[in-house]
Amino acid sequence: MFDRKSYWATINGEVEAQLERALPIREPLIVHQPMHDLVFSAPKSPAPALCIAACELVGGHRSDALSTAAAINLIQASTYVHQHLPNLLEKPSPSVFPDNIRLMSGDAISPLGFELLAGSDGTRRNPERVLRVIIEIARAMGAQGLVEGQYMHVKWAHSKPSMDEDEEALMQFCGKKEGTIYGCGAACGAILGGAGAEEVEKLRRYGFYVGMIYGMLSYGIGRENRGGMADKFRSLAVKELEGFEAGKVGPIISIADGCLDEK
Amino acid sequence: MFDRKSYWATINGEVEAQLERALPIREPLIVHQPMHDLVFSAPKSPAPALCIAACELVGGHRSDALSTAAAINLIQASTYVHQHLPNLLEKPSPSVFPDNIRLMSGDAISPLGFELLAGSDGTRRNPERVLRVIIEIARAMGAQGLVEGQYMHVKWAHSKPSMDEDEEALMQFCGKKEGTIYGCGAACGAILGGAGAEEVEKLRRYGFYVGMIYGMLSYGIGRENRGGMADKFRSLAVKELEGFEAGKVGPIISIADGCLDEK
Repeated sequence: MFDRKSYWATINGEVEAQLERALPIREPLIVHQPMHDLVFSAPKSPAPALCIAACELVGGHRSDALSTAAAINLIQASTYVHQHLPNLLEKPSPSVFPDNIRLMSGDAISPLGFELLAGSDGTRRNPERVLRVIIEIARAMGAQGLVEGQYMHVKWAHSKPSMDEDEEALMQFCGKKEGTIYGCGAACGAILGGAGAEEVEKLRRYGFYVGMIYGMLSYGIGRENRGGMADKFRSLAVKELEGFEAGKVGPIISIADGCLDEK
Repeated sequence: MFDRKSYWATINGEVEAQLERALPIREPLIVHQPMHDLVFSAPKSPAPALCIAACELVGGHRSDALSTAAAINLIQASTYVHQHLPNLLEKPSPSVFPDNIRLMSGDAISPLGFELLAGSDGTRRNPERVLRVIIEIARAMGAQGLVEGQYMHVKWAHSKPSMDEDEEALMQFCGKKEGTIYGCGAACGAILGGAGAEEVEKLRRYGFYVGMIYGMLSYGIGRENRGGMADKFRSLAVKELEGFEAGKVGPIISIADGCLDEK
């Protein structure tokens, strides 16, 4: 029987080991210590695991997707750090590091993600795939992905009545904020594993729906009916896996179910 | 006779056209208008021109280096935008855009640079070279390049006596802040033009010295003796061009001389 907890623990351990290698604590400590600490203290999401599970589902090797999974972790950490600076959200998080250090650390963390991507083991095997993945990740980060989500978050934080009552606004927000990067993670895993265009798009939609579940439940938005909406997204997600080998979809389905169970 | 002004004007025009294509003003305007305006109002540096001149010097085509030159422009603009946020420098610049918009815009501008790089025309011709260039640029941006320079800038802004009196601190600061990204620009142009390892490193050092001249003169640091120091860096720069075809070094030398003349 498929053991979700040990599958996740193994993936997370491998991603963390990759990050520890990429982020040694070295001189000048004023630069590297906060980068390291901010990355490892940022909340973890299932998006890197989706990348690896998608790669393995389409027949790729985990090692092809590990650097990309680590890069997605870095990009989410960098976004988290900037998102909690004063002036961006109404309630900035307290931090052991002053604002300017957090601003500069965020600015150093995301290029490290691209450095990992471009220098990953996969580049030697298939540089064209790695370039496609770099474009995917750059788009998911930027003005049509995470940053657009941040704009919506700022707008939302200032709006009354709250987004709770507006299902469409909620959908748009989670779609930009979680849907895009989770979908990107799954699509990148599929590309690196050698999937065709149709499989890549199915897995992107799968990741998008998983991101919707995770985002909705994390933010506690749409609270009234969130069970029903999350179940709806799970059904939509699972539908995207039709056509993949039934015996191999367990690990990737476990990521959607994990989001539902743990919230 | 080589006409420096028309060479620069042509290069800058081509880079700007590439940026205009990459940054259309589209909906949602709240996201795209500030990105566009902040990129086009950031001060221009000669680093993108160095990239193109280095590519042409080693026998490459300008079209191989244009996306990279545009990406360097984006990365410098993104750094400039974040560097002028409150709390980072003592005297934040006034801006038509509020702080949170400038923070988010900077976060959207730099991934657009990587998107341009990874999708550039050169990728079809030589994906391995493009991946090397992505690593170069990611490193020049991050904790051992521009961001380390920002840390030094913050430290410098708070230190008394000023850096003016400390030639070694000045060297380190300009080296991280301008030297690294100018050297990266020239090295990337050389890589894309097909240069060997030795030529790449010579052109990196050439760009580094040009960045030192430009940085020193821009910040007005080391004012007392800046003429003498700039001349010293020019001599060091020109020495790196020994071994390249004498009839072809005019354009790239003009970039060092332009820095000296226009300050």
